[in-house]
Amino acid sequence: MTAGNNGGVTVNGRNYRKPLAPTVVICFDGCDPRYIFHGAEAGLIPNISAIMSDGFFAIADAVMPTFTNPNNMSIVSGAPPSVHGISGNYYLDRATGREVMVTDASLVSCDTILAALANAGIRVAAITAKDKLRKMLGNGLRGICFSSERAHDATHEENGIDAVEGLVGRSTPDMYSPDLSLFALDAGIRLLETRRSNVLYVSLSDMVQHRAAPGEELANTFNRDVDQRIGKMLELGAIVGIVADHGMSEKCTPDGQAKVVYLEKALDEQFGGGCVRVICPIADPFVKHHGALGSFVRVYVIGSAPAQVLMDAAARIPGVALVLDGKSAAARYEMPVAWEGDFIAIGDTYTAIGSRPDEHDLSGLDGHRLRSHGGLTEQPVPFMVSRTLNAAYRAIASNRRLRNFDIFDFVLNGTA
Amino acid sequence: MTAGNNGGVTVNGRNYRKPLAPTVVICFDGCDPRYIFHGAEAGLIPNISAIMSDGFFAIADAVMPTFTNPNNMSIVSGAPPSVHGISGNYYLDRATGREVMVTDASLVSCDTILAALANAGIRVAAITAKDKLRKMLGNGLRGICFSSERAHDATHEENGIDAVEGLVGRSTPDMYSPDLSLFALDAGIRLLETRRSNVLYVSLSDMVQHRAAPGEELANTFNRDVDQRIGKMLELGAIVGIVADHGMSEKCTPDGQAKVVYLEKALDEQFGGGCVRVICPIADPFVKHHGALGSFVRVYVIGSAPAQVLMDAAARIPGVALVLDGKSAAARYEMPVAWEGDFIAIGDTYTAIGSRPDEHDLSGLDGHRLRSHGGLTEQPVPFMVSRTLNAAYRAIASNRRLRNFDIFDFVLNGTA
Repeated sequence: MTAGNNGGVTVNGRNYRKPLAPTVVICFDGCDPRYIFHGAEAGLIPNISAIMSDGFFAIADAVMPTFTNPNNMSIVSGAPPSVHGISGNYYLDRATGREVMVTDASLVSCDTILAALANAGIRVAAITAKDKLRKMLGNGLRGICFSSERAHDATHEENGIDAVEGLVGRSTPDMYSPDLSLFALDAGIRLLETRRSNVLYVSLSDMVQHRAAPGEELANTFNRDVDQRIGKMLELGAIVGIVADHGMSEKCTPDGQAKVVYLEKALDEQFGGGCVRVICPIADPFVKHHGALGSFVRVYVIGSAPAQVLMDAAARIPGVALVLDGKSAAARYEMPVAWEGDFIAIGDTYTAIGSRPDEHDLSGLDGHRLRSHGGLTEQPVPFMVSRTLNAAYRAIASNRRLRNFDIFDFVLNGTA
Repeated sequence: MTAGNNGGVTVNGRNYRKPLAPTVVICFDGCDPRYIFHGAEAGLIPNISAIMSDGFFAIADAVMPTFTNPNNMSIVSGAPPSVHGISGNYYLDRATGREVMVTDASLVSCDTILAALANAGIRVAAITAKDKLRKMLGNGLRGICFSSERAHDATHEENGIDAVEGLVGRSTPDMYSPDLSLFALDAGIRLLETRRSNVLYVSLSDMVQHRAAPGEELANTFNRDVDQRIGKMLELGAIVGIVADHGMSEKCTPDGQAKVVYLEKALDEQFGGGCVRVICPIADPFVKHHGALGSFVRVYVIGSAPAQVLMDAAARIPGVALVLDGKSAAARYEMPVAWEGDFIAIGDTYTAIGSRPDEHDLSGLDGHRLRSHGGLTEQPVPFMVSRTLNAAYRAIASNRRLRNFDIFDFVLNGTA
């Protein structure tokens, strides 16, 4: 059977079949491949291990910048940020000079696979851990779409479902608890059990991965808990695809000191105050575990120092891996050029880039190491499908670079 | 007119029209965009400046690693290294454990545009500065193919031409002189004048760019000289496409000290001698101006320390921008996986990565700053076509990331 034969949908130039069985895609937020390798070796994740041996497992590349919003939007649209329009949480609007937080779907510039399948009559549900993602992912979706964070608020009008706490059997979890993710998975399981969803997207939170490295108890427990839910979905007959929005790296020295380049401060010191504005696209109101520090920033020239001189100086700073002018960066990483900075700076594996120290509150780390993402090192992510692939998709997998946003294509088109 | 209407050729999945006018592609070796911007501003390069204003000018991305051989092969095949098979000058052969210098076309795994056009009856010529490239680029080419370096040796049997010194009017230039490149251009001009070539590829040497930054006298003079040859080609009615194989960055501290991570030494010190072999794919016999130091190396694990542990340690070293396992690196940068290391390491803008100090002779620098390439910073390169583009190619140029290996497509298909 080929795409279209069963009345599939075409979204952003790619065809997707309607599901042959209940189909789940999990965005395992911040799931660096090392969590999987460690968990498999330590026997913590038997269901994922079974998928790795009996289904399909590979490492795919996330989109840049390796943040949650751009990658979740890519996964549900099957396309890079240049197509869907979301390349961060936080922007400088050049027209107004104002800094803008992205909290809804107003910048989303394409259709999603979820909305298209729902329009084709499929029962679609999307569950996110955090509410900030919910509106974006649910753009145009005539189905169920809610967040764990606001589960108690879900209404039929807004979310296509209500009484979520009753469905799951417990109350809305704390914003900073691992249960924010587990609640989303449990809600998904209940939707599968009650046949209210035939295509289900569940996007977790990376709160645990920001706090705990592979092998640490918090991470081990969480990964075991997630794996157990995946087992339950498999028991229910679902085809499960698992992917991540980004990896996760320590952004610190070997002795655990946060390693941060405060780029606005550094350039101001060299070229005079007010030469640039550095925007951290990871910034959002929930920065407790990373202090709005990631490994990718956009820089806007607002003073008289020439961009090229500032770029050269930025690239000189230890820990800065790559500086590119905005247009080149947009082209190379398929980001929407309209929102690019005059230049971008990417940190190396162990370095985060911030703006000025007063804009980053690291007290929320509570003594744990700064762990974050956003750079090139966090592009490799696990990519797995619980069933064996058909020949066409085995060929695709061996012939080109897999992206995390290929996952819906693989679970819907690649499994029979 | 569309591709094929005039009996064009198809090479590596792309169609190329036969030339409508004499067509030249110049690989301006090591021509960082800054040379062009500086030269245009300083009025040094009037012919290139005219192309920038009246023809088409953009910044395109070179292929990784940003070295000469992989990029020249990409340009003449219109394809990334995963297709043509060449991802460096120097390899470790895993089967034999031996280190191998690539000096011929034995690893080239695809056809070239040059050979295909020649087979279709076009008079094709390829002229390189260095002979090491000549055999690779001339793979399967039934036409003229010689190097400035060995101009005095050219024979009809081997090179499709003889008496090159007579043709150009001077003797074979010194290997380390700017004239190595100018001789190649002058030979090309003579082939155009004598109508012995209708499609001409000229690949220069980056000796000048390794030695001199934009604005330094050596670079200014050289760029003026190259520009003058380009003017001559335009006068002769040629359509000229110009691209570079890679950019060029200072690999040193602001005060001019070479900034080098000796990765094999560093890992040996941490994990015991013989834990890895670091291969520098820039290595070749002509290393006077860079000491075989670039910003990209392949690492082969030969001891008992696990690859992941070694990768983590490598990424910790200041100046290392990115470490990726070989398979991920091959997928991300479209390199042939068969020749990848267990992992790769990329230096930041101002850092070169070497093996051990005794393998890198920096005495050839003669006091000038170490300038080199190989990393991500050296991907942006100038991309220009001397005529205005047709609507289809204007659309392509504004809709996707240009690669340096799109140049033959643009000059042959995009100009009428």
